[in-house]
Amino acid sequence: MTDRELENLSVILWRRVYQTYTRFKNAIDRTLSEYGLTMDQYLLLVTVKSYDSPIRITEIAGFLERSTNSISMLVDRMVKAGLLRRVRDRSDRRVVNVFLTSKAEKALELANPPFWEFLQQSMSLLSYKDRHTLASLLEPLNYKLLEYLNPGADIEGMLKTDAKQHNNRLKQWRKQPWLATREAKRSSSKGSKTRPPAEEQ
Amino acid sequence: MTDRELENLSVILWRRVYQTYTRFKNAIDRTLSEYGLTMDQYLLLVTVKSYDSPIRITEIAGFLERSTNSISMLVDRMVKAGLLRRVRDRSDRRVVNVFLTSKAEKALELANPPFWEFLQQSMSLLSYKDRHTLASLLEPLNYKLLEYLNPGADIEGMLKTDAKQHNNRLKQWRKQPWLATREAKRSSSKGSKTRPPAEEQ
Repeated sequence: MTDRELENLSVILWRRVYQTYTRFKNAIDRTLSEYGLTMDQYLLLVTVKSYDSPIRITEIAGFLERSTNSISMLVDRMVKAGLLRRVRDRSDRRVVNVFLTSKAEKALELANPPFWEFLQQSMSLLSYKDRHTLASLLEPLNYKLLEYLNPGADIEGMLKTDAKQHNNRLKQWRKQPWLATREAKRSSSKGSKTRPPAEEQ
Repeated sequence: MTDRELENLSVILWRRVYQTYTRFKNAIDRTLSEYGLTMDQYLLLVTVKSYDSPIRITEIAGFLERSTNSISMLVDRMVKAGLLRRVRDRSDRRVVNVFLTSKAEKALELANPPFWEFLQQSMSLLSYKDRHTLASLLEPLNYKLLEYLNPGADIEGMLKTDAKQHNNRLKQWRKQPWLATREAKRSSSKGSKTRPPAEEQ
């Protein structure tokens, strides 16, 4: 193996990351179009919904790692589409919080199961071990990217906080009635009705 | 391992793909801002530049796997910024081709080395073997995504054509003077001046 091959592989990998994301986005846009949502809109709704307290645009942008400007424009379009409401904070009138409308709640409720099903389908060729390996190999890459984007920051700490937050959100997700029903069905069809649910790692 | 854990891992992996891409985009935007380019603009310029013949917006969109509408808007902004020219095709006046301006040629020339250097840096924690494994594990995922996006198409064939095209572009890239100089310097600093260049796989 030469330096040249090693370098070429970084270009190939970067292209693969671009393609994987872009294809995911196109496929999710297609899956969700039936529910009147784009992937970006869906991710924004999920973010607002899973936040414990009122959320501001800067916080949404931080969570989705996008520019405040692009999230602001997205929120504008979603307010016009009747999916979000902007409400001034009672304690600090300068602050504007974002809330879901009942239309958005309904759209989310309908979109969650097909989104989940799509994710499962898209990964179905990867074994448990493959998924683990893939997730671990993306870690050093994300470490370097975070280091570049946040010079001097505690990257280990950032990664840990992120994993913890995500784990909590996954647990919340798991409490949704449609997922519980789905799981119950699966258990009964396997004849293991009494199997206790596994803990999230 | 339970079905539940397997399912959770798909959600974790999807989030990892989203984050990896988003962080790449943010980091590349930052790297290229010095040269007056965003990542999207840079990828578009590279696409137009590496195309053998005049290229249309639909072809750019196909290559970057984005909607014609979003590429069209991007081209509009880049025409305004003096980076692209729209020229009607001589043989078919209904067709509009896109060309780089000299300003874009200059910007590309300046942006190529830092972009390449950034890619190398971002992957520097991954060994040759890691990079190979990562690329291979992303393949079944892309297979499923392409299958979803192009029902009934010859996915194996699509993947092969894509790999071939990319390989050709990588070879073209390698011919750029600044990369050749870089490689020559490295060889001489290692005292292996006579080492023949390795072929792209």
